[in-house]
Amino acid sequence: MAPMARAMARPGGRSARVQQAVHDAVHALEAEVGRGALTVPLIAARAGVTPSTVYRRWGDLRELLSDVAVEHLRPETDPADHGELAADLAAWAEQFLDEMDSPPGRSYLRDALLGDPDGDNAGRCSAYAAEQIDVVLRRADARGERRLPDVETVLDQVVAPMMYRILFRPGGLDPAYARRLAAACVAGDRQ
Amino acid sequence: MAPMARAMARPGGRSARVQQAVHDAVHALEAEVGRGALTVPLIAARAGVTPSTVYRRWGDLRELLSDVAVEHLRPETDPADHGELAADLAAWAEQFLDEMDSPPGRSYLRDALLGDPDGDNAGRCSAYAAEQIDVVLRRADARGERRLPDVETVLDQVVAPMMYRILFRPGGLDPAYARRLAAACVAGDRQ
Repeated sequence: MAPMARAMARPGGRSARVQQAVHDAVHALEAEVGRGALTVPLIAARAGVTPSTVYRRWGDLRELLSDVAVEHLRPETDPADHGELAADLAAWAEQFLDEMDSPPGRSYLRDALLGDPDGDNAGRCSAYAAEQIDVVLRRADARGERRLPDVETVLDQVVAPMMYRILFRPGGLDPAYARRLAAACVAGDRQ
Repeated sequence: MAPMARAMARPGGRSARVQQAVHDAVHALEAEVGRGALTVPLIAARAGVTPSTVYRRWGDLRELLSDVAVEHLRPETDPADHGELAADLAAWAEQFLDEMDSPPGRSYLRDALLGDPDGDNAGRCSAYAAEQIDVVLRRADARGERRLPDVETVLDQVVAPMMYRILFRPGGLDPAYARRLAAACVAGDRQ
């Protein structure tokens, strides 16, 4: 089998390498020339691909930056295990708020929403949060903790208020607020 | 006093007229040429002002569209009075979701957030919701209803989950969801 045919038979491999190279180029150029000077041809040249590869895959610069932003928002580790749900959820909420409400977090959130006409990237942000909450809840279940909220309830009662305030109502966002939301959710009335 | 001096002594009057003319021009041109073809010079010409007036006041096209979007999101009437808090809040939440989750509502929300580097426009959206909730709560208080939530609690428990899902987790948003959030908030444990 010719090398070219091999490469085409594994599109995932090449595709993943292109994605990594382009994301790396965005990071490097953001640091070097600043966000406002980024262009698709500049990014493509740095990544060693053609501009049409970037346009074909991402659509335009804004969608590319949205994709890069969502990658930044992906959690790198499972939530810490503090031995009980109340502590796990409070610590996770506090860390989530700290990251999302930071200047880079706000900027990534904005990019994720902005270059995302079909809502897929924003959906990935929410899926990341849901996965982390699922880990915390499964752990609590495995410990034998009872009357657990479900993932959607935690999203409504803990994640949503923090995200709403970050985007629409800044001010008063502190670790105590995150912990209060988590505590109220864990203590919530459930049948 | 010369007419010119009179006009300069009432900057609010001229300022309000310019704002109205420019907003009207955006609406008319959106309908005629479509959103993608809007430019500041085109809008300024239609509004009968110079492009520099637009740039000076709004910064750029995106900020202007953000300002226009927030005006669209401003409620035109007080929430309906159904005689008790639970009914008032459920009906208000249902209407809020219906408006914000519609295609124009989503588009305005997006514009409001995106052309808003300092968060002022998004803050106005939240202030509109807070004012409406305040009307509902004051009415309940005047009726003698007790154990009322406060405005911030209603924002966290009713508005935030709807807005979070509209932006980050579409699907499953129906009137029953809005009513369920309102009912849980009214029934919530409070000292």
